[in-house]
Amino acid sequence: MADTNRGVVYVEPGRVSVEDMPYPTLVLEEQNNRRLQHGAILKVLATNICGSDQHMVRGRTTAPAGLTLGHEITGEVIETGEDVEFIKVGDIVSVPFNIACGRCRNCKEGHTGVCENVNPARAGAAYGYVDMGGWHGGQARYVVVPYADWNLLKIPADRDTVMAKLLDLAMLSDIFPTGYHGAYTAGVTTGSTVYVAGAGPVGLACATACFLLGAAVVIVGDMNKDRLAQASSFGCEIVDLSAHGNLAEEIEHVLGMPEVDAAVDCVGFEARGHGPEGSTTEQPATVLNSLMDATRAAGRVGIPGLYVTGDPGAADEKAKEGTLGIRIGLGWAKSHVFTTGQCPVMRYNRQLMMAILHDRVQIARNVNALVIPLDQAPHGYEEFDRGAAHKYVLDPHGELAGARF
Amino acid sequence: MADTNRGVVYVEPGRVSVEDMPYPTLVLEEQNNRRLQHGAILKVLATNICGSDQHMVRGRTTAPAGLTLGHEITGEVIETGEDVEFIKVGDIVSVPFNIACGRCRNCKEGHTGVCENVNPARAGAAYGYVDMGGWHGGQARYVVVPYADWNLLKIPADRDTVMAKLLDLAMLSDIFPTGYHGAYTAGVTTGSTVYVAGAGPVGLACATACFLLGAAVVIVGDMNKDRLAQASSFGCEIVDLSAHGNLAEEIEHVLGMPEVDAAVDCVGFEARGHGPEGSTTEQPATVLNSLMDATRAAGRVGIPGLYVTGDPGAADEKAKEGTLGIRIGLGWAKSHVFTTGQCPVMRYNRQLMMAILHDRVQIARNVNALVIPLDQAPHGYEEFDRGAAHKYVLDPHGELAGARF
Amino acid sequence: MADTNRGVVYVEPGRVSVEDMPYPTLVLEEQNNRRLQHGAILKVLATNICGSDQHMVRGRTTAPAGLTLGHEITGEVIETGEDVEFIKVGDIVSVPFNIACGRCRNCKEGHTGVCENVNPARAGAAYGYVDMGGWHGGQARYVVVPYADWNLLKIPADRDTVMAKLLDLAMLSDIFPTGYHGAYTAGVTTGSTVYVAGAGPVGLACATACFLLGAAVVIVGDMNKDRLAQASSFGCEIVDLSAHGNLAEEIEHVLGMPEVDAAVDCVGFEARGHGPEGSTTEQPATVLNSLMDATRAAGRVGIPGLYVTGDPGAADEKAKEGTLGIRIGLGWAKSHVFTTGQCPVMRYNRQLMMAILHDRVQIARNVNALVIPLDQAPHGYEEFDRGAAHKYVLDPHGELAGARF
Amino acid sequence: MADTNRGVVYVEPGRVSVEDMPYPTLVLEEQNNRRLQHGAILKVLATNICGSDQHMVRGRTTAPAGLTLGHEITGEVIETGEDVEFIKVGDIVSVPFNIACGRCRNCKEGHTGVCENVNPARAGAAYGYVDMGGWHGGQARYVVVPYADWNLLKIPADRDTVMAKLLDLAMLSDIFPTGYHGAYTAGVTTGSTVYVAGAGPVGLACATACFLLGAAVVIVGDMNKDRLAQASSFGCEIVDLSAHGNLAEEIEHVLGMPEVDAAVDCVGFEARGHGPEGSTTEQPATVLNSLMDATRAAGRVGIPGLYVTGDPGAADEKAKEGTLGIRIGLGWAKSHVFTTGQCPVMRYNRQLMMAILHDRVQIARNVNALVIPLDQAPHGYEEFDRGAAHKYVLDPHGELAGARF
Repeated sequence: MADTNRGVVYVEPGRVSVEDMPYPTLVLEEQNNRRLQHGAILKVLATNICGSDQHMVRGRTTAPAGLTLGHEITGEVIETGEDVEFIKVGDIVSVPFNIACGRCRNCKEGHTGVCENVNPARAGAAYGYVDMGGWHGGQARYVVVPYADWNLLKIPADRDTVMAKLLDLAMLSDIFPTGYHGAYTAGVTTGSTVYVAGAGPVGLACATACFLLGAAVVIVGDMNKDRLAQASSFGCEIVDLSAHGNLAEEIEHVLGMPEVDAAVDCVGFEARGHGPEGSTTEQPATVLNSLMDATRAAGRVGIPGLYVTGDPGAADEKAKEGTLGIRIGLGWAKSHVFTTGQCPVMRYNRQLMMAILHDRVQIARNVNALVIPLDQAPHGYEEFDRGAAHKYVLDPHGELAGARF
Repeated sequence: MADTNRGVVYVEPGRVSVEDMPYPTLVLEEQNNRRLQHGAILKVLATNICGSDQHMVRGRTTAPAGLTLGHEITGEVIETGEDVEFIKVGDIVSVPFNIACGRCRNCKEGHTGVCENVNPARAGAAYGYVDMGGWHGGQARYVVVPYADWNLLKIPADRDTVMAKLLDLAMLSDIFPTGYHGAYTAGVTTGSTVYVAGAGPVGLACATACFLLGAAVVIVGDMNKDRLAQASSFGCEIVDLSAHGNLAEEIEHVLGMPEVDAAVDCVGFEARGHGPEGSTTEQPATVLNSLMDATRAAGRVGIPGLYVTGDPGAADEKAKEGTLGIRIGLGWAKSHVFTTGQCPVMRYNRQLMMAILHDRVQIARNVNALVIPLDQAPHGYEEFDRGAAHKYVLDPHGELAGARF
Repeated sequence: MADTNRGVVYVEPGRVSVEDMPYPTLVLEEQNNRRLQHGAILKVLATNICGSDQHMVRGRTTAPAGLTLGHEITGEVIETGEDVEFIKVGDIVSVPFNIACGRCRNCKEGHTGVCENVNPARAGAAYGYVDMGGWHGGQARYVVVPYADWNLLKIPADRDTVMAKLLDLAMLSDIFPTGYHGAYTAGVTTGSTVYVAGAGPVGLACATACFLLGAAVVIVGDMNKDRLAQASSFGCEIVDLSAHGNLAEEIEHVLGMPEVDAAVDCVGFEARGHGPEGSTTEQPATVLNSLMDATRAAGRVGIPGLYVTGDPGAADEKAKEGTLGIRIGLGWAKSHVFTTGQCPVMRYNRQLMMAILHDRVQIARNVNALVIPLDQAPHGYEEFDRGAAHKYVLDPHGELAGARF
Repeated sequence: MADTNRGVVYVEPGRVSVEDMPYPTLVLEEQNNRRLQHGAILKVLATNICGSDQHMVRGRTTAPAGLTLGHEITGEVIETGEDVEFIKVGDIVSVPFNIACGRCRNCKEGHTGVCENVNPARAGAAYGYVDMGGWHGGQARYVVVPYADWNLLKIPADRDTVMAKLLDLAMLSDIFPTGYHGAYTAGVTTGSTVYVAGAGPVGLACATACFLLGAAVVIVGDMNKDRLAQASSFGCEIVDLSAHGNLAEEIEHVLGMPEVDAAVDCVGFEARGHGPEGSTTEQPATVLNSLMDATRAAGRVGIPGLYVTGDPGAADEKAKEGTLGIRIGLGWAKSHVFTTGQCPVMRYNRQLMMAILHDRVQIARNVNALVIPLDQAPHGYEEFDRGAAHKYVLDPHGELAGARF
């Protein structure tokens, strides 16, 4: 406890800084000194920058100055509350970005992404968001997590093995399960043809998940050539949407037919139009509408990409409240099924951990993970915002192996 | 075969007539004299007027003058093609409104609503639509059906039993499976609380299906007092949307909480707004948006109500191509799942038939079925269009028991 | 706390007695003074005698003298541990008979019947069994339950409503979910034809569940005429297996075909043969083998009836270790699926509670629940063992309404 | 049609021969000159020897002398009946070994392994079995298949591509879907640990399927060192059951825990005991019982391995009717789910074909396929019966590429 804490703080649109902050305790001052008997304190070994952080930093959501950012956390348990029975000090654990109580109806039914208890304002909580329960973010040296026995996934291997794979395991807190959820709910299975919209880290994780699920062909579309090259590097077919406005045509070039079995939206509301003209302006429903066009009748569409209920930066009044012009008639004619929402990480993380530990998947390689020191987080945010084809992993204690900044 | 044929024909927006027409044969002149070895000719015992017929007659789809209407058919087999092995002359059968080949990928996977072969223009075929394969409608004395062994559901009971229940069995061709599909895909099961939007025949069939699936509470909303009274008559709670603009509030009155477990859209695109003001104007996305509001996080929304890709009668350009302003951000925040499209009738009709034959459900009573002679079809269309709380069943051969016009 | 405790204790094969016992505390002496911060103490309002208790009392399992019996508990919370956040003193709750931690892999995946943590000997724990974790039984005035936020189902209604339905709600702790699990895993759904083996309380609960799931026909077989009459009283078809040795023939009399869609074994290993001769001797695989005969190809068989790994009272050496002569070749030829094991009560109890609270099901009536004072428990055990067609509900505090002894 | 037919014929236990036989026609003399308007005649390009053929040739089922053997068929369509609309002459197709009508309840529900119509004796039909409908086997130059539009899977690629992959595609008619079905119904998915009993072709195909489904660890047990080496060659862990009698111990060596998530029985009733002693005698329930021991609580067991209702060669009377001593008490205690029966090939073959065509799986390599001329079939049967680690593929027209005899 002699150690001090330090983490990434939101300052204003476009700016974050790394600042000293109090060392966390199991008594939450901001919640009337609530004592977290079920909680644990973690030494953060890896904590990633996420596209959702970017939405926030770009001013597209409602973040207050001073908020500690970060919800992708992997760490070592250094203290536990009195009612933590199975997680032990010294365990290395992956933390699902959704905070869940493990005691409400939704948690019992596996919907940990919309836990009813942790966030008093509405179903669903996460670290590092003011409107997701107000919990401190994890882009820091230390962080507190509630309901530790329920939330934490212990990595069941010796420390050397774990540390050697930590860059892969760090993807279990969010993007790998999120990409997998998108693929899984889109019905991706053995032999599927899939279109993944977006080659950012979630899109690349989704494409990786598609192959793990047995997909025959995975086509990834984006406008960023570096990211497309990254997708191509592990076997995806690619479509450059800055050059091509007609997705169905591009799919036909690959498959010999203009539709895929399944499609996943890994972009969300900050989308631009397709083609040389479209791609210069924001068109928040472009991705959804193009997926209906590109998905076969009886196909499914997974939508892990974020859509919001309030977007102060949107172009028009409708979009500001999250109302978009969706070609629902087309989806209906094709009997499409749409699955929306945050991934309930706990539903998948143990399985994906097993695939990592037994070398069935190279997720850090596929998302091009790049390790950076905690104090260089602002630079990482900038690079990521510019579209660098990397997943940035902050290394608060200098213990991470892997490609470095 | 000496008998002559006669059926309901679309004349112009707002007008249908009953006209003589050729007796059907297993050789289709309009398809280059294609010989339907797999086909059968039915003597139509019951054929219902559907809300989809109304859309067409109101000029909200693209129907040509002269089209024989009708896709809800129950009949007796009077002739079979040479490759019909299991369906026999004399069988009384229910005909799914979706025409399916039983030989394509979608049919093999159970998606008979989007069969790839029967309609050359796009996946999905039905009787009585020019853009659903061009097959003759069934509001007639006789009709031809292809792929008889695949499509026809034989009622496995003696003739007297069948005739006594024919008014119930007549609902198996469309609305009962359609309502059930909406409920089933919305996740309705034992103990569910459900909101059903719309108290027309599909809404009433859906509410009936909800109870059959074990729902604890079924709330039905509409603006038509007679239809609401009909819903109330078999145990539904009701919300009069012409009086109340805030659905969540009304749900709270019933349940003590403002959200249901599951919701079903049995209205579709021809929706009006809610409340005393809203209800006077068409607002095609009202129902979908209100369902997202009224459904709990992790809930599901079934959308059997029709949304179209082309609506010549729509108020604005976007809506004319089926693009509606949908509050997708709200659904996403609640992790909703949306299932759209036509019901694949074959997936459910045998089971629902069993429930009817063994008196587990009173579907004809619940939808307030009313038998009318074929020649009075135009009057039935008018009454139905005015919002009469009836399901109209045409009786081409005068053999139907049940409440009569 | 001035109150004293008193409960039903196993004495020797064939004998139980009601004895004073210590008032429970949240510190477990028998577990090294483990402090149950997650636990709660309940005032028991209803606690039922179960067929599994009978197996034990008949000496067919390994119960030690002095064991407090009982695992079907409904009660009022009178004390909670410090880490109980959502269950409150005063709540009336149903207790699943499976004790689960809510923190292991199986619990997270919904398999609370085989929780990995609560019973150190093997997966799965229950109240009142020495080999299921050694937890005190609940046929007592007071009982302690661990992991209260996870395990307890709060009845969300005012006290008067709850007390008026308590006899129905008392079935939520075991037999109603258990019967439902059998039916559900056998694939019972809308329109199913079902055979339920056994008309004891679980069989009757299963038949009730079949109707709730929408079954068209439910056939119940037993050798006890009173129990068959009870099944008949709420719409089941019945087969008297003491008179008829050929189940398929009897099914054909009812259905016109010799096989059902789905079958459920609500008997387990203490089965006798069928027919006038067979029924006089124990034949532990009779039920399973007859179900394979009576279930159609592609059907499913649910097996909530208990099969054990050690049966000291079995007729032969193989059966003593739970090895039975099963006609697996027949099941295989029909592509049957078999689901075994204890019901994970939490998967179903909330839904079934909703069905009870909204009057969709009359479970207490269907199982012929009979209320008896705690001190008359030995008499209840005797009557039940003689095959009385009742579900016996002990009333430790004299607060239960309902039919009384 | 000038060509003559020739195929593999069962002579007596232990002996097959290759004989001339009539060229097939679409009129079935043996079925009262039934005209197969829905049928097709195939030129057989590849037809494999299966373990089920071996059971028959070893006299363990009831095959009459003169029966043409073979149910694993890949071929080119050379004639079609008048009601075949979508399969065309020249198509190269895979034939599911289950013959299904595509018109009965089971076919409509996806259970093509137990079609109700094709085999009048009982649900389920196959080529080359007297008790599975009496259809001619496919180990011949030409064969007739009924319901061609329903049963045949067209390979959608140009002829050169198809021929280059034909040895892989030949596994789609039976063992690849069968192994996949075993894995799938055992719940194998991303990250699973799996035990596969048997390293014959089905076991190797199942292990291949496990990896395709995303398994983390696949452990294969057998007593045949060559077959184990084959399993090892593509990444499986192996257990030599002739040396080790305690499967759980061996699993613990691999996983650090004695149980797997899922297990698949790819052996069936012709099983021997485990360990140096057990392995010398037939113990038909050994595999099932060991799988219950080796599978974790809440796990599933897939049973594609054959169990029969009549086994003339069995050691005791019970086994002769397919009744085996199964330790059901153990499975029950662990809440196991058991899925039995023949694989419904159509449920999986299209997907697996896609995986083959897009190089996601090397099934021919993994099962060590070996091409042999039709006339050397007897030698292939002998070698296979001796336990050669090969899948034998007959090449009736000399057009197959691949490793040759």
